[in-house]
Amino acid sequence: MIIDCHGHYTTAPAPHNDWREAQKAAFKAGEVPPLYPTLSDDEIRETLEKNQLRLLRERGADMTIFSPRASAMAHHVGDEAVSTAWARHNNDLIKRCVDLYPDVFIGVGMLPQSPGVPIENSIAELERCVNELGFVGCNLNPDPSGGHFSAPPLIDRSWYPFYEKMVELDVPAMVHVSGSCNPVFHATGAYYISADTTAFMQFIQGDLFGDFPELRFIIPHGGGAVPYHWGRYRGLADMLKQPPLDGHVMKNVWFDAAVVVRPNSTPDQLERIAARIRQIGVKRILYGSDAASSPLAYPKAGWAALQRLPLTNTELVVMANNIAPYMRDFAVR
Amino acid sequence: MIIDCHGHYTTAPAPHNDWREAQKAAFKAGEVPPLYPTLSDDEIRETLEKNQLRLLRERGADMTIFSPRASAMAHHVGDEAVSTAWARHNNDLIKRCVDLYPDVFIGVGMLPQSPGVPIENSIAELERCVNELGFVGCNLNPDPSGGHFSAPPLIDRSWYPFYEKMVELDVPAMVHVSGSCNPVFHATGAYYISADTTAFMQFIQGDLFGDFPELRFIIPHGGGAVPYHWGRYRGLADMLKQPPLDGHVMKNVWFDAAVVVRPNSTPDQLERIAARIRQIGVKRILYGSDAASSPLAYPKAGWAALQRLPLTNTELVVMANNIAPYMRDFAVR
Repeated sequence: MIIDCHGHYTTAPAPHNDWREAQKAAFKAGEVPPLYPTLSDDEIRETLEKNQLRLLRERGADMTIFSPRASAMAHHVGDEAVSTAWARHNNDLIKRCVDLYPDVFIGVGMLPQSPGVPIENSIAELERCVNELGFVGCNLNPDPSGGHFSAPPLIDRSWYPFYEKMVELDVPAMVHVSGSCNPVFHATGAYYISADTTAFMQFIQGDLFGDFPELRFIIPHGGGAVPYHWGRYRGLADMLKQPPLDGHVMKNVWFDAAVVVRPNSTPDQLERIAARIRQIGVKRILYGSDAASSPLAYPKAGWAALQRLPLTNTELVVMANNIAPYMRDFAVR
Repeated sequence: MIIDCHGHYTTAPAPHNDWREAQKAAFKAGEVPPLYPTLSDDEIRETLEKNQLRLLRERGADMTIFSPRASAMAHHVGDEAVSTAWARHNNDLIKRCVDLYPDVFIGVGMLPQSPGVPIENSIAELERCVNELGFVGCNLNPDPSGGHFSAPPLIDRSWYPFYEKMVELDVPAMVHVSGSCNPVFHATGAYYISADTTAFMQFIQGDLFGDFPELRFIIPHGGGAVPYHWGRYRGLADMLKQPPLDGHVMKNVWFDAAVVVRPNSTPDQLERIAARIRQIGVKRILYGSDAASSPLAYPKAGWAALQRLPLTNTELVVMANNIAPYMRDFAVR
């Protein structure tokens, strides 16, 4: 079974997005937001059939780990109450997608994070996502400020209460920032990649996985800059007197392969990507398309390209079956 | 002639660093800083002979573009007056290195940047560096806040007066942040790489090089995450309706090869690096060691490794002779 580990609901029905605009306007005006609209199953089906389901079929994948649109989480907008309402509506919408296509979608939730608000306040929504909605993980935003990087590093103890809950519920998190409100950072071109890279370096700096041996993270977008600078990170681990990466950080961290292989990748490029994947370890790579998150998303040929990687059949099978860490729980159900 | 495009004076004599500590203490106490110490030529020679000159010889390179220690620029410390005094002393010290070893060192200056202070205020020091000290460029810090990314993007018009002066003086800048005062960012593991990547994306977003066809930047540390995500950047340029990278940004931007080739790189890795360099274009790659900037610096074998790259002799010669953009002025003298 081929599971896409990184899919977002980027095509939610218009009334859902309209409500968000109304919610933001109400916050600005100091008013109560309007009631969330009623969405029909057909409305939801239509947005999925034309997009995610079509792409999935074209790629020959079977299921998608499906979470709310990352760039729209926008934890920097409004306050905690705004984020809480927005997170609940988004997660409920994902749950409806899962219920409509239970053989295709596996839910992952967004959190009601807000700048300066303790991460403890996101625990209730994580519990609701896992225990009530049947989700298998969450997207954890390391920078709810939207590009000002004002939150403590992910190895800071202030994050620990949330990690304890993740371990207790046995669910992983994808480290994923949202939209940027800092003009310095283009969201997908600078902010995402910088945040991915920065998270990885934080994991090297601390002993987070000594404290939480069961804690599991996915670093998306091919691992940011990390695979390219693998020698730098090995050297920094050594310089900081930390264990080698493969015996430390890489026991708890997975990279996705989103936007790494292109439909038009040359044989030469495929060789290099395959070699890099081997260096990281095929067990640490998850197939993820980041599908329909941008015009960069590519159909059929994209997944075909991934399969064209000059890896051994055994290695491809390992990658294709890398359902951990998301699916550990799911497989039990 | 082999010129290392990225070298810092990381081993300045102790009295220089002691003065900096005294300067910071005086600023905190609201007092006048002590007089800058007198440094003998022998003191300076000793720090260079044992370090940069030894490494240069071992690597078989001929000259080094030499600038003040990047992590110690610390523009976020103190105020504009503090940065101004510190920049002048650092640049004067680089000038002394150049005078002691004129066949080896080529000076590049740091700027008296300070958070919130207009970049115009750095023009005088750039002029002094070029016209009085004979330097061939500067290190431009895109984030003088030290990790809060509070300055406008490099394509913002507020930077333009400085760019006008760069063009007038016909000197390039290396985009180089300094130390991080944000615990989120490990300086060399997260901050440098994020800033490099972010600068490149900013260049894609605007039409800076349409406004300044002669403006030249070096993005260090192998170009941050950019070469790894080359497909992403090509796609983003397309999505933002910008010209293709090779007809736009890459006409004005160079990457260095610092910390890309390791002494223990395998033939397989060398193949990949060579292919990546070809993709960017050998003319856009400058040999840079980032020498002695950290314990990651490596001797003899490092430069030997770069020469072991499976590039054609013609390509290696192009790379070895890539003296632009720093040396355009220099060659004239």
